[in-house]
Amino acid sequence: MAPAALEDFETQRLHGEELSTAPVAYTPSAAFKSKQQQGKPDAVSLSHHFSNESRDFEGSPLKKTALNRTDFVPLGTGRPTAELYPWSLDDKQAQATATALSAKGYNLTTALNYGHAGGTPFLIRYLTEHVELVHNPPYRNWETCLTAGSTSAMEIALRIFGDRGDVVLTEEFTYPGFLEAVHLSGMKAKGVKMDDGGLREDSLAEILDNWNTSDGPKPKLLYTIPTGQNPTGYTQSLERRKAIYRIADRHDLIVIEDDPYYYIKAGPLAESDASAQTDGGGFISQLIPSYLSLDTSGRVIRLDSTAKILAPGLRAGWVTASERVISKFMAYHEVTTVAVSGMSQLMLYDLLDRTWGHEGFFRWLEKLSGRYRKRRDIIVGACQKYLPRAACDFIPPSYGMFVWIRFDMALHPQLRELLGSPDVQMLRTTVATVEQRILQDALQNGVQVTKGSLFRSSGGEAHEMFFRLTFAAAREDELAEGVRLFAEVVRKEFLADAVGL
Amino acid sequence: MAPAALEDFETQRLHGEELSTAPVAYTPSAAFKSKQQQGKPDAVSLSHHFSNESRDFEGSPLKKTALNRTDFVPLGTGRPTAELYPWSLDDKQAQATATALSAKGYNLTTALNYGHAGGTPFLIRYLTEHVELVHNPPYRNWETCLTAGSTSAMEIALRIFGDRGDVVLTEEFTYPGFLEAVHLSGMKAKGVKMDDGGLREDSLAEILDNWNTSDGPKPKLLYTIPTGQNPTGYTQSLERRKAIYRIADRHDLIVIEDDPYYYIKAGPLAESDASAQTDGGGFISQLIPSYLSLDTSGRVIRLDSTAKILAPGLRAGWVTASERVISKFMAYHEVTTVAVSGMSQLMLYDLLDRTWGHEGFFRWLEKLSGRYRKRRDIIVGACQKYLPRAACDFIPPSYGMFVWIRFDMALHPQLRELLGSPDVQMLRTTVATVEQRILQDALQNGVQVTKGSLFRSSGGEAHEMFFRLTFAAAREDELAEGVRLFAEVVRKEFLADAVGL
Repeated sequence: MAPAALEDFETQRLHGEELSTAPVAYTPSAAFKSKQQQGKPDAVSLSHHFSNESRDFEGSPLKKTALNRTDFVPLGTGRPTAELYPWSLDDKQAQATATALSAKGYNLTTALNYGHAGGTPFLIRYLTEHVELVHNPPYRNWETCLTAGSTSAMEIALRIFGDRGDVVLTEEFTYPGFLEAVHLSGMKAKGVKMDDGGLREDSLAEILDNWNTSDGPKPKLLYTIPTGQNPTGYTQSLERRKAIYRIADRHDLIVIEDDPYYYIKAGPLAESDASAQTDGGGFISQLIPSYLSLDTSGRVIRLDSTAKILAPGLRAGWVTASERVISKFMAYHEVTTVAVSGMSQLMLYDLLDRTWGHEGFFRWLEKLSGRYRKRRDIIVGACQKYLPRAACDFIPPSYGMFVWIRFDMALHPQLRELLGSPDVQMLRTTVATVEQRILQDALQNGVQVTKGSLFRSSGGEAHEMFFRLTFAAAREDELAEGVRLFAEVVRKEFLADAVGL
Repeated sequence: MAPAALEDFETQRLHGEELSTAPVAYTPSAAFKSKQQQGKPDAVSLSHHFSNESRDFEGSPLKKTALNRTDFVPLGTGRPTAELYPWSLDDKQAQATATALSAKGYNLTTALNYGHAGGTPFLIRYLTEHVELVHNPPYRNWETCLTAGSTSAMEIALRIFGDRGDVVLTEEFTYPGFLEAVHLSGMKAKGVKMDDGGLREDSLAEILDNWNTSDGPKPKLLYTIPTGQNPTGYTQSLERRKAIYRIADRHDLIVIEDDPYYYIKAGPLAESDASAQTDGGGFISQLIPSYLSLDTSGRVIRLDSTAKILAPGLRAGWVTASERVISKFMAYHEVTTVAVSGMSQLMLYDLLDRTWGHEGFFRWLEKLSGRYRKRRDIIVGACQKYLPRAACDFIPPSYGMFVWIRFDMALHPQLRELLGSPDVQMLRTTVATVEQRILQDALQNGVQVTKGSLFRSSGGEAHEMFFRLTFAAAREDELAEGVRLFAEVVRKEFLADAVGL
């Protein structure tokens, strides 16, 4: 059956029931998917993977008393009625804000009240349609709900599936927030080797095929950032994704697909001049397929974030997985943040649904990618121009916002002799000292960069040093200067001019 | 030394440094307290109480690279610059919103970016001053930071201090969200007996004095809702608070003071006619002293919530405790929600600091209390009028938003004979059936109420049945009718008219 198109959702909305604006109203994604989803097989059950903590945890019985109706006198739940909020609709300023932000449906009054752990139905509807349009998961019973950002979502995923002593597989270098959460829960991260194409399937297979249970229970979780990876900027090809997914299927592995950079596509360097804008649909169809779109078994937990494509301050994202897993997510939301800030939900609803619609969002993502492409070209050009290329290398990223620079420490004056030495600890300490000195000298020189060692999950070579540069945070016109200032420090550190690097 | 007054803070602000609007800027409360705090003793250390999980957890090293300055090219952290947000300041609508919400200082641009786990310095300043004005904690090194709501904060408190198998003391009936979090972490809740004045100090002392370590390690946490308790609406007197605090000191107990109803003071029934408004300061000074204000040792973790006094949808509150404990809170924020929604922070800053100031907030709380007083009077009047008083009783609440109705099951036709029976399990099941039937019949009849059994922490008498009514959620003009509809169901259930109750 052909995948659903925009028009199918428009028709469906036209004939669908009106959404509830009752406090803590909830409607699952199932109500918003196209009919095309019905014929698909169900997800495999992942419940044998549930942690001791989460196995019997179904969320708050009190919260389950919430109803999508308002045809009764509410003496049950301590949710102050809207007339008791100080942002009153009588107040002129608040009225202006309320009008500006949302006229009907989900509005300021609803947003200021308690909300459901899964998000307002108004956003679940939009995001379900969006997920189906972009990823069209190949199984039937997937669900999408809001998260209080992907960092919160990955921590919850660890609580749902992880027990103390478990080993979680990650890329060799990865997002430190995830590593923190792993360590906090008494688990260990094990790094899978990477190359320019990201996580290597051969390294993953080797680890799983030869797992020695004396090192702990066989890993059941793989955390990966497949697109514009943090910190390397590397992107896994479709072939690699398929190969990794096959390994996951063979070893009954759950894949946490953390994909905040998915929609930021700078493309290859050669294309950089492309400035023509389309209707956005073409842009979306040319994005690399996600793990979710390959997920025939229902073993992927896909995390989407608003932080890089809309605004980080919203602390909101969405997660897509099989319905049983999503209901666990919502149970955890209930005992932690309870719900995503209503103000954030209102901003998102107003922009995504009321203002943009799906095509408008796609156009925004294409436009945003164009702006990142320009920035990527500037920073890559500056790196090529200013850095001592003989002592370092990097891959121009085609997605995301990071340039990962690897330094060859064999060319560092202080390390040159040490490298042959059998004293690996001494070597590591020296590299760490050099890394820290470059960081501080760079800041002194007027540029902030990030040490590569912060991203290391486990293992790694003693003679390597990395720095991560981002082209997201600086003004476009100061990017090249930033790289120049950094390069100045690096050249001095490597005595580049003296030795001709 | 006399406690600081409003004017002291005004002067201090005038001479203070300008606050940073850099992304992830942070300034501790210490910078905003009055000089009067300097002479106080330090808090006792609670670090021997830290859980295995939290003991060595200091938060994210990457996050610690944040700086309160902007005088460098930021190539370090992946925080998209404001020009990359879709709520652009060029956009007319967004500009109107931005202007309406915040002209200078903390504004939309800052709010949409990443924020610090502790909250923007603009709010920390306000809340620190507020805490000092209202509670003036008797030790020196207290700190206040934002929370993503009190439910999130209590869950974090459990993670900081609790290990699997620990027993946490609570009121006999308490907030189910807390009980959920306790069970989720593999801990147990033990209910301390209550009377009309809330948690009973003799029951607390008895439990601790006679603790048998074969039931688990001696409790180190007491969770209490001292004011307008949920679900009972009971308020601990000052004498009782002092007695309980002395016991906490003697047994090295940490007190989690969850106080969302503190500022909702309906007062005794007789005062109900008081409609005169003051400058708010008088109102504040007549509130019952909090545990924080009695906390000479620094063993109280006070949770304040915006949910009941401003709006629940903000998902924001604040926590006050000794600095070491607050830094643990922030470390946990970093790996969970990262920060409170910038939109919520902006709404709060704009209202509390820019619009109201401290006196305006006090006046709002007094006005709000007046509105709750009116509602309390209506619901209490309706309960007196409609309920079969011989079969039930309740205490008119002087704080908060709940009326807790205890039913004497000896008067229930189905239970009358059973009560003498030694089959306690049978008795419990029957009471549960009656409770559930009343709930459903009430909803059928057009009123939503809450079953008392949802709030039970541990133990309890088999022959008791409770319902919680709230006067916060319904419209003022439907409150009495709601009670009448509920009473109709109760009267039918107890055959009240037939037996003359």
